[in-house]
Amino acid sequence: MISLMLEMKTTEFLEALSSSEPVPGGGGASAAAGAMGAALGMMVANLTVGKKKYADVEAEVIEVREKLRAYRERLAELTDRDAEAFEPLSRAYGLPKDTPEQREEKAGVLEQALYEASVVPLEIMETVLRVMELLEALGEKGSRIAISDVGVGILFAGAALEGASLNVFINTKLMKDEKRAAELNGEADRMIREGRLLKEKVYGGVLDHIR
Amino acid sequence: MISLMLEMKTTEFLEALSSSEPVPGGGGASAAAGAMGAALGMMVANLTVGKKKYADVEAEVIEVREKLRAYRERLAELTDRDAEAFEPLSRAYGLPKDTPEQREEKAGVLEQALYEASVVPLEIMETVLRVMELLEALGEKGSRIAISDVGVGILFAGAALEGASLNVFINTKLMKDEKRAAELNGEADRMIREGRLLKEKVYGGVLDHIR
Repeated sequence: MISLMLEMKTTEFLEALSSSEPVPGGGGASAAAGAMGAALGMMVANLTVGKKKYADVEAEVIEVREKLRAYRERLAELTDRDAEAFEPLSRAYGLPKDTPEQREEKAGVLEQALYEASVVPLEIMETVLRVMELLEALGEKGSRIAISDVGVGILFAGAALEGASLNVFINTKLMKDEKRAAELNGEADRMIREGRLLKEKVYGGVLDHIR
Repeated sequence: MISLMLEMKTTEFLEALSSSEPVPGGGGASAAAGAMGAALGMMVANLTVGKKKYADVEAEVIEVREKLRAYRERLAELTDRDAEAFEPLSRAYGLPKDTPEQREEKAGVLEQALYEASVVPLEIMETVLRVMELLEALGEKGSRIAISDVGVGILFAGAALEGASLNVFINTKLMKDEKRAAELNGEADRMIREGRLLKEKVYGGVLDHIR
């Protein structure tokens, strides 16, 4: 896994998250929570593979596990990407606005930086949604002894999805191009809807099983 | 912060979580997600303290931050406690059951181990609920520029609360003492209800502000 943020000890990551420094922030933390959701899915897959009782789904569960591994690594990278996207935004806010030319220049640079800072959390959402679909498959086919971990995984993924969406909305709200902002918000809203349905279905199934 | 689990690099923690080894599992991961929620609250507090605009709430916000720090550390410790509570459970499952005496002995040891394995996630829930109350205060009094991080924090805490509850239910379900199991489940249910109300209120407030 390649991630500067997550190469820190978790205690150090928590300390960095607690500080007033802009990164890591809610976006990067959402990617990390999504990675935990993917990891819990991998645990369930690993507890299923090699068991006689689940031999008939083994090939499929291995495939799910390898997809989850790829998404987990992608989300680890996205914790860094989210931090990187903040830099141009911070630079744009610092540009002078003394003359009309400077104000126009600043507005243009800021608009682009806001767009780029919205695209990363949208990509986090997209990746987390794929993780949720794989957790759905594990809720149906994975080992019953690990069903609670499917539940914890879908809860984390749901929180990661909506957490990332907040980082879309704070940026689009400041954009001047209302059409583009509405498009980005529409993408986020579509994924929130899909994610909530998946969460309800998978979490409901887990509760039915363990309560 | 003292935590063997969270002294790992986050990438290593994710790898350990992904494995078929019983710990870290969903309980420890829930404590870690709760710690991230506390850390996000601390960030909001740190972005509030020292700002002229928020001078009149500064003393209160500093107090909130220090409580969050204590709960963050407590949750880091609880990731280890959760792992430790699994050991007696694992040993109990491995006891022989060849004679009636052995079966009786095993049932008694298992019952106690299940109880102890339920108490740790209940303590995670209790701590996370305190974090949620502090995030509620920050949603009202913290810096507006960090309002989305209050939202991400309450989402993580909500997922941590319900994730830990699943680890109560899987253990109480196996207990023979139905009265004790019902008491533990009742505690978990009460905290889930409180937590859902807090989450709805705080998250709703955040959405009202940023959308």
